[in-house]
Amino acid sequence: MTVSRPQALYVYAHPEQRSFNRELFDAARAELELTHDVVTSDLYAMGFDPRLGEHDLGAFARTNGSFLTRWSSALAAAQLPEEICVEQQKLLDADLVVLQFPLWWYSVPAILKGWFDRVLSAGFGFDVRDPETGRTRKYGDGLLTGKRALVVVSFGEAGSALSPRGIAGDLESVLYGLIHGTLFYTGIEVLPLHAIPEADDFDSADVAREIARLRARVSELRTERPIPFRRMRGGDYTPERVLREDVAPGRTDLGIHREDSGRPDAGALRPAG
Amino acid sequence: MTVSRPQALYVYAHPEQRSFNRELFDAARAELELTHDVVTSDLYAMGFDPRLGEHDLGAFARTNGSFLTRWSSALAAAQLPEEICVEQQKLLDADLVVLQFPLWWYSVPAILKGWFDRVLSAGFGFDVRDPETGRTRKYGDGLLTGKRALVVVSFGEAGSALSPRGIAGDLESVLYGLIHGTLFYTGIEVLPLHAIPEADDFDSADVAREIARLRARVSELRTERPIPFRRMRGGDYTPERVLREDVAPGRTDLGIHREDSGRPDAGALRPAG
Repeated sequence: MTVSRPQALYVYAHPEQRSFNRELFDAARAELELTHDVVTSDLYAMGFDPRLGEHDLGAFARTNGSFLTRWSSALAAAQLPEEICVEQQKLLDADLVVLQFPLWWYSVPAILKGWFDRVLSAGFGFDVRDPETGRTRKYGDGLLTGKRALVVVSFGEAGSALSPRGIAGDLESVLYGLIHGTLFYTGIEVLPLHAIPEADDFDSADVAREIARLRARVSELRTERPIPFRRMRGGDYTPERVLREDVAPGRTDLGIHREDSGRPDAGALRPAG
Repeated sequence: MTVSRPQALYVYAHPEQRSFNRELFDAARAELELTHDVVTSDLYAMGFDPRLGEHDLGAFARTNGSFLTRWSSALAAAQLPEEICVEQQKLLDADLVVLQFPLWWYSVPAILKGWFDRVLSAGFGFDVRDPETGRTRKYGDGLLTGKRALVVVSFGEAGSALSPRGIAGDLESVLYGLIHGTLFYTGIEVLPLHAIPEADDFDSADVAREIARLRARVSELRTERPIPFRRMRGGDYTPERVLREDVAPGRTDLGIHREDSGRPDAGALRPAG
Protein backbone atom coordinates (compact mmCIF):
# COMPACT_ATOMS: atom_id res chain seq x y z
CA MET A 1 0.00 0.00 0.00
CA THR A 2 1.29 3.40 -0.98
CA VAL A 3 0.78 6.36 1.29
CA SER A 4 0.43 9.42 -0.89
CA ARG A 5 2.17 12.59 0.16
CA PRO A 6 0.42 15.96 0.28
CA GLN A 7 0.59 17.99 -2.90
CA ALA A 8 1.89 21.54 -3.15
CA LEU A 9 1.63 24.12 -5.92
CA TYR A 10 4.35 26.77 -5.80
CA VAL A 11 3.49 29.86 -7.85
CA TYR A 12 6.44 32.16 -8.43
CA ALA A 13 6.30 35.60 -10.05
CA HIS A 14 9.64 37.34 -10.46
CA PRO A 15 11.29 38.34 -13.75
CA GLU A 16 14.96 37.77 -12.96
CA GLN A 17 16.77 34.48 -13.35
CA ARG A 18 19.40 35.55 -10.82
CA SER A 19 18.00 37.33 -7.82
CA PHE A 20 17.34 37.03 -4.11
CA ASN A 21 13.81 35.89 -4.88
CA ARG A 22 15.09 33.15 -7.16
CA GLU A 23 17.47 31.85 -4.49
CA LEU A 24 14.65 31.89 -1.97
CA PHE A 25 12.34 30.09 -4.39
CA ASP A 26 14.90 27.33 -5.03
CA ALA A 27 15.60 26.83 -1.33
CA ALA A 28 11.98 26.87 -0.19
CA ARG A 29 10.95 24.48 -2.94
CA ALA A 30 13.72 22.05 -1.94
CA GLU A 31 12.56 22.23 1.68
CA LEU A 32 8.94 21.71 0.66
CA GLU A 33 9.89 18.64 -1.38
CA LEU A 34 10.96 16.90 1.81
CA THR A 35 7.31 16.67 2.82
CA HIS A 36 5.22 17.35 -0.29
CA ASP A 37 5.01 16.44 -3.93
CA VAL A 38 5.63 19.86 -5.48
CA VAL A 39 4.59 21.27 -8.82
CA THR A 40 5.54 24.81 -9.80
CA SER A 41 4.14 27.64 -11.86
CA ASP A 42 7.12 29.87 -12.62
CA LEU A 43 5.01 32.47 -14.40
CA TYR A 44 7.77 34.42 -16.14
CA ALA A 45 9.51 31.22 -17.26
CA MET A 46 6.16 29.99 -18.61
CA GLY A 47 5.62 33.25 -20.49
CA PHE A 48 2.19 33.35 -18.90
CA ASP A 49 -0.13 35.89 -20.58
CA PRO A 50 -1.98 37.74 -17.79
CA ARG A 51 -4.58 39.44 -19.99
CA LEU A 52 -8.07 38.04 -19.52
CA GLY A 53 -9.95 38.48 -22.79
CA GLU A 54 -11.89 36.95 -25.64
CA HIS A 55 -9.25 34.23 -26.03
CA ASP A 56 -10.51 32.83 -22.72
CA LEU A 57 -13.92 32.05 -24.20
CA GLY A 58 -13.07 29.32 -26.71
CA ALA A 59 -15.92 28.80 -29.15
CA PHE A 60 -18.01 31.19 -27.06
CA ALA A 61 -15.91 34.13 -28.26
CA ARG A 62 -18.17 34.03 -31.34
CA THR A 63 -21.51 33.82 -29.53
CA ASN A 64 -23.72 36.51 -28.04
CA GLY A 65 -24.31 37.18 -24.37
CA SER A 66 -22.41 38.70 -21.50
CA PHE A 67 -18.75 37.96 -20.98
CA LEU A 68 -19.50 36.22 -17.68
CA THR A 69 -22.15 33.95 -19.17
CA ARG A 70 -19.94 32.98 -22.08
CA TRP A 71 -16.98 32.43 -19.78
CA SER A 72 -19.02 30.06 -17.57
CA SER A 73 -20.21 28.26 -20.69
CA ALA A 74 -16.63 27.89 -21.89
CA LEU A 75 -15.71 26.19 -18.61
CA ALA A 76 -18.72 23.88 -18.74
CA ALA A 77 -17.98 22.94 -22.35
CA ALA A 78 -14.25 22.37 -21.68
CA GLN A 79 -13.44 25.30 -23.98
CA LEU A 80 -11.00 27.17 -21.74
CA PRO A 81 -7.48 27.52 -23.16
CA GLU A 82 -5.22 24.55 -22.48
CA GLU A 83 -2.80 26.59 -20.32
CA ILE A 84 -5.69 27.65 -18.08
CA CYS A 85 -6.98 24.09 -17.68
CA VAL A 86 -3.50 23.02 -16.62
CA GLU A 87 -3.34 25.68 -13.91
CA GLN A 88 -6.85 24.87 -12.68
CA GLN A 89 -5.94 21.20 -12.37
CA LYS A 90 -2.80 22.11 -10.42
CA LEU A 91 -4.99 24.06 -7.98
CA LEU A 92 -7.51 21.24 -7.66
CA ASP A 93 -4.71 18.76 -6.95
CA ALA A 94 -2.95 20.94 -4.37
CA ASP A 95 -3.33 20.70 -0.61
CA LEU A 96 -1.03 23.69 -0.19
CA VAL A 97 -0.53 26.70 -2.47
CA VAL A 98 2.59 28.84 -2.03
CA LEU A 99 2.63 32.27 -3.67
CA GLN A 100 5.95 34.12 -3.83
CA PHE A 101 6.30 37.58 -5.33
CA PRO A 102 7.85 41.00 -4.82
CA LEU A 103 5.40 43.70 -3.73
CA TRP A 104 5.04 46.11 -6.66
CA TRP A 105 2.91 49.19 -6.02
CA TYR A 106 1.55 47.54 -2.88
CA SER A 107 0.14 44.62 -4.83
CA VAL A 108 1.15 41.56 -6.84
CA PRO A 109 3.05 41.87 -10.13
CA ALA A 110 0.71 42.03 -13.14
CA ILE A 111 1.70 38.54 -14.29
CA LEU A 112 0.40 37.11 -11.00
CA LYS A 113 -2.70 39.31 -10.97
CA GLY A 114 -3.54 37.95 -14.39
CA TRP A 115 -3.00 34.37 -13.21
CA PHE A 116 -5.87 34.98 -10.78
CA ASP A 117 -7.92 36.90 -13.35
CA ARG A 118 -7.74 34.03 -15.85
CA VAL A 119 -7.34 30.83 -13.79
CA LEU A 120 -10.03 31.61 -11.21
CA SER A 121 -12.60 31.70 -13.97
CA ALA A 122 -16.40 32.08 -13.73
CA GLY A 123 -17.77 28.83 -12.34
CA PHE A 124 -14.35 27.85 -11.00
CA GLY A 125 -13.15 30.72 -8.81
CA PHE A 126 -16.41 32.64 -8.51
CA ASP A 127 -20.06 32.22 -9.46
CA VAL A 128 -19.78 28.73 -8.01
CA ARG A 129 -23.27 27.50 -7.15
CA ASP A 130 -24.34 25.02 -4.54
CA PRO A 131 -26.38 22.51 -6.56
CA GLU A 132 -28.80 21.94 -3.68
CA THR A 133 -29.54 25.48 -2.55
CA GLY A 134 -28.61 27.36 -5.73
CA ARG A 135 -26.71 29.86 -3.58
CA THR A 136 -23.32 31.20 -4.53
CA ARG A 137 -20.43 29.65 -2.63
CA LYS A 138 -17.96 32.33 -1.55
CA TYR A 139 -15.94 33.76 1.35
CA GLY A 140 -14.74 30.61 3.05
CA ASP A 141 -16.74 28.34 0.79
CA GLY A 142 -15.86 27.57 -2.81
CA LEU A 143 -14.39 24.92 -5.10
CA LEU A 144 -11.01 25.25 -3.38
CA THR A 145 -12.28 24.71 0.17
CA GLY A 146 -9.92 22.74 2.40
CA LYS A 147 -6.71 23.96 0.79
CA ARG A 148 -4.21 26.25 2.51
CA ALA A 149 -2.01 29.03 1.17
CA LEU A 150 1.32 30.53 2.22
CA VAL A 151 2.03 34.01 0.86
CA VAL A 152 5.72 35.00 0.68
CA VAL A 153 6.19 38.66 -0.17
CA SER A 154 9.32 40.80 -0.36
CA PHE A 155 9.48 44.58 -0.44
CA GLY A 156 11.99 47.35 -0.31
CA GLU A 157 10.52 49.42 2.47
CA ALA A 158 11.12 49.06 6.18
CA GLY A 159 8.57 46.89 7.95
CA SER A 160 7.41 49.87 10.01
CA ALA A 161 5.95 51.58 6.92
CA LEU A 162 3.75 48.50 6.38
CA SER A 163 2.78 48.02 10.02
CA PRO A 164 -0.48 49.08 11.69
CA ARG A 165 -0.50 52.91 11.46
CA GLY A 166 2.42 52.75 9.01
CA ILE A 167 2.03 55.14 6.08
CA ALA A 168 1.63 52.36 3.50
CA GLY A 169 -1.00 50.54 5.56
CA ASP A 170 -0.43 47.30 7.43
CA LEU A 171 0.47 44.46 5.11
CA GLU A 172 -2.59 42.37 5.90
CA SER A 173 -4.88 45.28 4.98
CA VAL A 174 -2.90 46.18 1.86
CA LEU A 175 -3.16 42.56 0.68
CA TYR A 176 -6.75 42.11 1.90
CA GLY A 177 -8.07 41.82 -1.66
CA LEU A 178 -5.61 38.96 -2.27
CA ILE A 179 -5.73 37.01 0.97
CA HIS A 180 -9.42 37.55 1.79
CA GLY A 181 -11.05 38.72 -1.44
CA THR A 182 -9.32 36.14 -3.64
CA LEU A 183 -7.86 33.19 -1.72
CA PHE A 184 -10.36 32.98 1.16
CA TYR A 185 -13.17 33.86 -1.26
CA THR A 186 -12.56 30.59 -3.13
CA GLY A 187 -12.38 28.59 0.11
CA ILE A 188 -8.60 28.59 0.60
CA GLU A 189 -7.42 29.14 4.20
CA VAL A 190 -4.56 31.64 4.35
CA LEU A 191 -1.63 31.20 6.74
CA PRO A 192 -0.06 34.27 8.38
CA LEU A 193 1.83 36.35 5.83
CA HIS A 194 5.57 35.72 5.36
CA ALA A 195 6.90 39.26 4.89
CA ILE A 196 10.47 40.09 3.87
CA PRO A 197 11.12 43.82 4.33
CA GLU A 198 14.08 45.91 3.15
CA ALA A 199 14.82 43.34 0.46
CA ASP A 200 16.33 45.75 -2.08
CA ASP A 201 19.64 46.01 -0.30
CA PHE A 202 20.32 42.45 0.85
CA ASP A 203 23.90 41.26 1.21
CA SER A 204 24.79 37.58 1.30
CA ALA A 205 24.23 37.37 5.06
CA ASP A 206 20.73 38.79 4.66
CA VAL A 207 19.98 36.28 1.93
CA ALA A 208 21.22 33.39 4.06
CA ARG A 209 19.15 34.59 7.01
CA GLU A 210 15.97 34.86 4.94
CA ILE A 211 16.53 31.46 3.33
CA ALA A 212 16.93 29.87 6.75
CA ARG A 213 13.85 31.67 8.05
CA LEU A 214 11.63 30.54 5.18
CA ARG A 215 12.99 26.96 5.27
CA ALA A 216 12.17 26.79 8.98
CA ARG A 217 8.70 28.14 8.31
CA VAL A 218 8.04 25.71 5.46
CA SER A 219 9.16 22.76 7.58
CA GLU A 220 6.54 23.57 10.23
CA LEU A 221 3.55 24.58 8.13
CA ARG A 222 1.45 21.66 9.29
CA THR A 223 1.26 22.97 12.82
CA GLU A 224 0.23 26.48 11.78
CA ARG A 225 -3.23 27.93 12.09
CA PRO A 226 -4.66 30.02 9.27
CA ILE A 227 -5.89 33.59 9.60
CA PRO A 228 -9.38 33.16 11.10
CA PHE A 229 -11.43 35.13 8.59
CA ARG A 230 -15.15 35.09 9.29
CA ARG A 231 -17.20 32.95 6.91
CA MET A 232 -19.94 34.76 5.04
CA ARG A 233 -22.61 32.36 6.26
CA GLY A 234 -21.20 32.02 9.78
CA GLY A 235 -23.77 34.34 11.34
CA ASP A 236 -21.63 37.47 11.69
CA TYR A 237 -22.92 39.25 8.57
CA THR A 238 -26.30 40.70 7.72
CA PRO A 239 -28.02 39.62 4.48
CA GLU A 240 -26.50 42.78 2.95
CA ARG A 241 -23.03 41.32 3.73
CA VAL A 242 -22.28 43.93 6.39
CA LEU A 243 -20.77 42.91 9.74
CA ARG A 244 -23.42 42.88 12.46
CA GLU A 245 -23.34 45.95 14.67
CA ASP A 246 -22.59 43.96 17.80
CA VAL A 247 -19.51 42.31 16.29
CA ALA A 248 -16.31 44.35 16.75
CA PRO A 249 -18.58 47.32 17.45
CA GLY A 250 -17.58 50.79 16.29
CA ARG A 251 -14.58 49.65 14.27
CA THR A 252 -14.04 49.98 10.53
CA ASP A 253 -10.53 48.53 10.09
CA LEU A 254 -10.27 45.44 7.90
CA GLY A 255 -9.20 43.41 10.94
CA ILE A 256 -12.87 43.23 11.97
CA HIS A 257 -13.29 40.43 9.43
CA ARG A 258 -11.10 38.17 11.56
CA GLU A 259 -12.88 36.04 14.13
CA ASP A 260 -10.35 37.05 16.78
CA SER A 261 -11.25 40.75 16.49
CA GLY A 262 -13.85 40.97 19.19
CA ARG A 263 -16.86 38.73 18.92
CA PRO A 264 -19.02 39.89 21.80
CA ASP A 265 -19.86 36.38 22.96
CA ALA A 266 -16.33 34.99 22.62
CA GLY A 267 -15.44 33.51 25.97
CA ALA A 268 -17.52 35.97 27.97
CA LEU A 269 -20.21 34.79 30.36
CA ARG A 270 -19.45 31.20 29.62
CA PRO A 271 -19.43 28.78 32.56
CA ALA A 272 -15.98 27.47 33.35
CA GLY A 273 -15.09 23.92 32.39
CA MET B 1 -2.74 84.68 -28.04
CA THR B 2 -3.94 81.11 -27.66
CA VAL B 3 -5.32 79.93 -24.36
CA SER B 4 -4.44 76.28 -24.02
CA ARG B 5 -7.01 73.93 -22.61
CA PRO B 6 -6.22 71.50 -19.79
CA GLN B 7 -4.97 68.08 -20.88
CA ALA B 8 -6.54 64.78 -19.85
CA LEU B 9 -5.29 61.22 -20.16
CA TYR B 10 -8.06 58.61 -20.13
CA VAL B 11 -6.78 55.11 -19.34
CA TYR B 12 -9.30 52.39 -20.08
CA ALA B 13 -8.91 48.71 -19.23
CA HIS B 14 -11.74 46.47 -20.38
CA PRO B 15 -11.51 43.59 -22.87
CA GLU B 16 -14.86 43.85 -24.64
CA GLN B 17 -15.58 46.04 -27.61
CA ARG B 18 -19.29 46.04 -26.83
CA SER B 19 -20.06 46.42 -23.15
CA PHE B 20 -21.46 48.77 -20.55
CA ASN B 21 -17.94 49.91 -19.75
CA ARG B 22 -17.29 50.75 -23.40
CA GLU B 23 -20.47 52.84 -23.62
CA LEU B 24 -19.50 54.63 -20.44
CA PHE B 25 -15.98 55.24 -21.74
CA ASP B 26 -17.26 56.72 -25.00
CA ALA B 27 -19.75 58.98 -23.23
CA ALA B 28 -17.37 60.18 -20.50
CA ARG B 29 -14.64 60.87 -23.03
CA ALA B 30 -17.03 62.94 -25.14
CA GLU B 31 -18.05 64.92 -22.07
CA LEU B 32 -14.44 65.46 -21.08
CA GLU B 33 -13.59 66.72 -24.55
CA LEU B 34 -15.90 69.68 -23.98
CA THR B 35 -13.40 71.07 -21.48
CA HIS B 36 -10.10 69.21 -22.02
CA ASP B 37 -7.81 68.05 -24.76
CA VAL B 38 -8.08 64.29 -24.29
CA VAL B 39 -5.66 61.51 -25.16
CA THR B 40 -6.54 57.90 -24.41
CA SER B 41 -4.77 54.70 -23.49
CA ASP B 42 -7.21 51.92 -24.39
CA LEU B 43 -4.97 49.20 -23.03
CA TYR B 44 -6.64 46.17 -24.63
CA ALA B 45 -6.91 47.91 -28.00
CA MET B 46 -3.21 48.80 -27.74
CA GLY B 47 -2.30 45.19 -26.95
CA PHE B 48 -0.36 46.56 -23.99
CA ASP B 49 2.01 43.96 -22.49
CA PRO B 50 1.72 44.24 -18.68
CA ARG B 51 4.74 42.11 -17.82
CA LEU B 52 7.62 44.13 -16.38
CA GLY B 53 10.84 42.35 -17.26
CA GLU B 54 14.26 42.45 -18.90
CA HIS B 55 12.76 44.03 -22.03
CA ASP B 56 12.27 47.18 -19.93
CA LEU B 57 16.01 47.62 -19.48
CA GLY B 58 17.12 48.37 -23.03
CA ALA B 59 20.89 48.01 -23.36
CA PHE B 60 21.07 47.51 -19.59
CA ALA B 61 19.49 44.07 -19.94
CA ARG B 62 23.02 42.92 -20.78
CA THR B 63 24.83 44.64 -17.90
CA ASN B 64 25.37 43.58 -14.31
CA GLY B 65 23.77 45.07 -11.24
CA SER B 66 20.40 45.02 -9.59
CA PHE B 67 17.22 45.28 -11.63
CA LEU B 68 16.37 48.61 -9.99
CA THR B 69 19.76 50.15 -10.74
CA ARG B 70 19.68 49.01 -14.35
CA TRP B 71 16.08 50.18 -14.72
CA SER B 72 17.00 53.67 -13.46
CA SER B 73 19.96 53.70 -15.81
CA ALA B 74 17.71 52.74 -18.72
CA LEU B 75 15.48 55.75 -17.99
CA ALA B 76 18.44 58.12 -17.68
CA ALA B 77 19.94 56.82 -20.93
CA ALA B 78 16.61 57.00 -22.81
CA GLN B 79 16.66 53.23 -23.19
CA LEU B 80 13.12 52.45 -22.04
CA PRO B 81 10.92 50.80 -24.67
CA GLU B 82 9.19 53.24 -27.02
CA GLU B 83 5.70 52.25 -25.85
CA ILE B 84 6.68 53.08 -22.26
CA CYS B 85 8.15 56.47 -23.20
CA VAL B 86 4.89 57.31 -24.95
CA GLU B 87 2.85 56.52 -21.85
CA GLN B 88 5.21 58.47 -19.59
CA GLN B 89 4.92 61.51 -21.84
CA LYS B 90 1.14 61.24 -21.78
CA LEU B 91 1.28 61.31 -17.98
CA LEU B 92 3.68 64.26 -17.92
CA ASP B 93 1.42 66.21 -20.28
CA ALA B 94 -1.78 65.47 -18.37
CA ASP B 95 -3.46 67.75 -15.86
CA LEU B 96 -6.10 65.10 -15.21
CA VAL B 97 -5.82 61.31 -15.36
CA VAL B 98 -8.98 59.22 -15.61
CA LEU B 99 -8.73 55.50 -14.88
CA GLN B 100 -11.71 53.31 -15.78
CA PHE B 101 -11.80 49.59 -15.11
CA PRO B 102 -13.94 46.74 -13.78
CA LEU B 103 -12.97 45.52 -10.30
CA TRP B 104 -11.53 42.02 -10.73
CA TRP B 105 -10.64 40.19 -7.53
CA TYR B 106 -10.92 43.47 -5.63
CA SER B 107 -8.20 45.10 -7.70
CA VAL B 108 -7.42 46.36 -11.19
CA PRO B 109 -7.28 44.03 -14.20
CA ALA B 110 -3.76 42.69 -14.81
CA ILE B 111 -3.34 44.79 -17.95
CA LEU B 112 -3.80 47.95 -15.87
CA LYS B 113 -1.64 46.71 -12.99
CA GLY B 114 1.14 46.15 -15.51
CA TRP B 115 0.67 49.63 -16.93
CA PHE B 116 1.62 50.94 -13.49
CA ASP B 117 4.37 48.33 -13.04
CA ARG B 118 6.07 49.35 -16.30
CA VAL B 119 5.19 53.02 -16.88
CA LEU B 120 5.87 54.20 -13.31
CA SER B 121 9.47 53.13 -13.68
CA ALA B 122 12.39 53.59 -11.29
CA GLY B 123 13.33 57.27 -11.38
CA PHE B 124 9.97 58.20 -12.87
CA GLY B 125 7.30 56.77 -10.57
CA PHE B 126 9.49 55.92 -7.59
CA ASP B 127 13.09 56.41 -6.47
CA VAL B 128 12.68 60.03 -7.54
CA ARG B 129 15.30 62.12 -5.75
CA ASP B 130 15.21 65.76 -4.79
CA PRO B 131 18.41 67.13 -6.33
CA GLU B 132 18.96 69.56 -3.47
CA THR B 133 18.35 67.34 -0.44
CA GLY B 134 18.95 63.93 -2.03
CA ARG B 135 15.80 62.68 -0.30
CA THR B 136 13.30 60.46 -2.03
CA ARG B 137 10.15 62.24 -3.16
CA LYS B 138 7.08 60.16 -2.38
CA TYR B 139 3.59 60.17 -0.83
CA GLY B 140 2.24 63.47 -2.02
CA ASP B 141 5.50 64.50 -3.64
CA GLY B 142 6.86 63.07 -6.88
CA LEU B 143 7.34 63.77 -10.57
CA LEU B 144 3.56 63.83 -11.08
CA THR B 145 2.80 66.40 -8.39
CA GLY B 146 -0.01 68.79 -9.24
CA LYS B 147 -2.00 66.38 -11.37
CA ARG B 148 -5.37 64.97 -10.36
CA ALA B 149 -6.96 61.56 -10.95
CA LEU B 150 -10.52 60.32 -11.26
CA VAL B 151 -10.99 56.57 -10.67
CA VAL B 152 -14.11 55.03 -12.24
CA VAL B 153 -14.66 51.46 -11.11
CA SER B 154 -17.52 49.04 -11.77
CA PHE B 155 -18.26 45.84 -9.89
CA GLY B 156 -20.89 43.16 -9.69
CA GLU B 157 -21.54 43.19 -5.98
CA ALA B 158 -23.97 45.38 -4.06
CA GLY B 159 -22.44 48.56 -2.71
CA SER B 160 -23.10 47.39 0.86
CA ALA B 161 -20.53 44.59 0.53
CA LEU B 162 -17.89 47.24 -0.27
CA SER B 163 -18.98 49.75 2.38
CA PRO B 164 -17.37 50.33 5.78
CA ARG B 165 -17.88 47.03 7.68
CA GLY B 166 -18.95 45.34 4.42
CA ILE B 167 -17.47 41.87 3.99
CA ALA B 168 -15.27 42.87 1.05
CA GLY B 169 -13.89 45.93 2.85
CA ASP B 170 -14.81 49.50 2.04
CA LEU B 171 -13.81 50.47 -1.48
CA GLU B 172 -11.34 53.16 -0.43
CA SER B 173 -9.47 50.65 1.74
CA VAL B 174 -9.57 47.89 -0.86
CA LEU B 175 -8.10 50.30 -3.43
CA TYR B 176 -5.71 51.97 -0.94
CA GLY B 177 -2.66 50.53 -2.70
CA LEU B 178 -3.86 52.13 -5.94
CA ILE B 179 -5.16 55.50 -4.81
CA HIS B 180 -2.66 56.14 -2.01
CA GLY B 181 0.24 53.72 -2.61
CA THR B 182 0.42 54.38 -6.35
CA LEU B 183 -1.30 57.60 -7.46
CA PHE B 184 -0.75 59.75 -4.35
CA TYR B 185 2.72 58.22 -3.94
CA THR B 186 3.79 59.81 -7.23
CA GLY B 187 2.24 63.15 -6.29
CA ILE B 188 -1.14 62.78 -8.02
CA GLU B 189 -4.14 64.02 -6.00
CA VAL B 190 -7.03 61.55 -6.11
CA LEU B 191 -10.64 62.67 -6.38
CA PRO B 192 -13.35 60.74 -4.50
CA LEU B 193 -13.90 57.32 -6.09
CA HIS B 194 -16.62 56.95 -8.72
CA ALA B 195 -18.08 53.54 -7.86
CA ILE B 196 -20.61 51.69 -10.00
CA PRO B 197 -22.04 48.73 -8.06
CA GLU B 198 -24.20 45.85 -9.32
CA ALA B 199 -22.92 46.42 -12.84
CA ASP B 200 -23.24 42.80 -14.02
CA ASP B 201 -26.98 42.97 -14.50
CA PHE B 202 -27.53 46.40 -16.01
CA ASP B 203 -30.46 46.96 -18.33
CA SER B 204 -30.61 49.90 -20.72
CA ALA B 205 -32.14 52.19 -18.08
CA ASP B 206 -29.28 51.40 -15.70
CA VAL B 207 -26.76 52.15 -18.42
CA ALA B 208 -28.43 55.47 -19.23
CA ARG B 209 -28.51 56.42 -15.56
CA GLU B 210 -24.82 55.64 -15.06
CA ILE B 211 -23.82 57.48 -18.23
CA ALA B 212 -25.73 60.56 -17.07
CA ARG B 213 -24.20 60.30 -13.59
CA LEU B 214 -20.63 60.09 -14.88
CA ARG B 215 -21.17 62.86 -17.45
CA ALA B 216 -22.46 65.12 -14.68
CA ARG B 217 -19.48 64.24 -12.53
CA VAL B 218 -16.98 64.85 -15.33
CA SER B 219 -18.52 68.22 -16.13
CA GLU B 220 -17.95 69.41 -12.56
CA LEU B 221 -14.53 67.99 -11.78
CA ARG B 222 -12.92 71.40 -11.45
CA THR B 223 -14.90 72.23 -8.36
CA GLU B 224 -14.09 68.94 -6.60
CA ARG B 225 -11.64 68.51 -3.76
CA PRO B 226 -9.30 65.53 -3.72
CA ILE B 227 -9.09 62.96 -0.94
CA PRO B 228 -6.95 64.74 1.69
CA PHE B 229 -4.25 62.12 2.21
CA ARG B 230 -1.55 63.17 4.66
CA ARG B 231 1.79 64.04 3.07
CA MET B 232 4.74 62.02 4.28
CA ARG B 233 6.69 65.13 5.23
CA GLY B 234 3.70 67.04 6.60
CA GLY B 235 4.60 66.38 10.23
CA ASP B 236 2.08 63.62 10.98
CA TYR B 237 4.51 60.70 10.59
CA THR B 238 7.52 59.63 12.63
CA PRO B 239 10.87 59.08 10.88
CA GLU B 240 9.87 55.39 10.73
CA ARG B 241 6.85 56.41 8.59
CA VAL B 242 4.34 55.57 11.32
CA LEU B 243 1.48 57.93 12.15
CA ARG B 244 2.21 59.88 15.33
CA GLU B 245 0.40 58.50 18.36
CA ASP B 246 -1.56 61.69 18.95
CA VAL B 247 -2.99 61.72 15.42
CA ALA B 248 -6.23 59.72 15.09
CA PRO B 249 -5.25 58.03 18.35
CA GLY B 250 -6.07 54.38 18.89
CA ARG B 251 -7.23 53.71 15.36
CA THR B 252 -5.71 51.33 12.80
CA ASP B 253 -8.12 51.67 9.85
CA LEU B 254 -6.63 53.03 6.64
CA GLY B 255 -8.80 56.14 6.95
CA ILE B 256 -6.29 57.47 9.51
CA HIS B 257 -4.10 58.51 6.59
CA ARG B 258 -6.64 61.14 5.58
CA GLU B 259 -6.20 64.57 7.09
CA ASP B 260 -9.89 64.71 7.99
CA SER B 261 -9.61 61.67 10.25
CA GLY B 262 -8.92 63.44 13.51
CA ARG B 263 -5.96 65.68 13.72
CA PRO B 264 -5.92 66.76 17.34
CA ASP B 265 -5.21 70.41 16.59
CA ALA B 266 -7.56 70.73 13.61
CA GLY B 267 -9.72 73.73 14.23
CA ALA B 268 -9.60 73.45 17.98
CA LEU B 269 -8.49 76.36 20.12
CA ARG B 270 -8.14 78.59 17.12
CA PRO B 271 -9.40 82.15 17.46
CA ALA B 272 -12.38 82.92 15.26
CA GLY B 273 -11.90 84.94 12.08
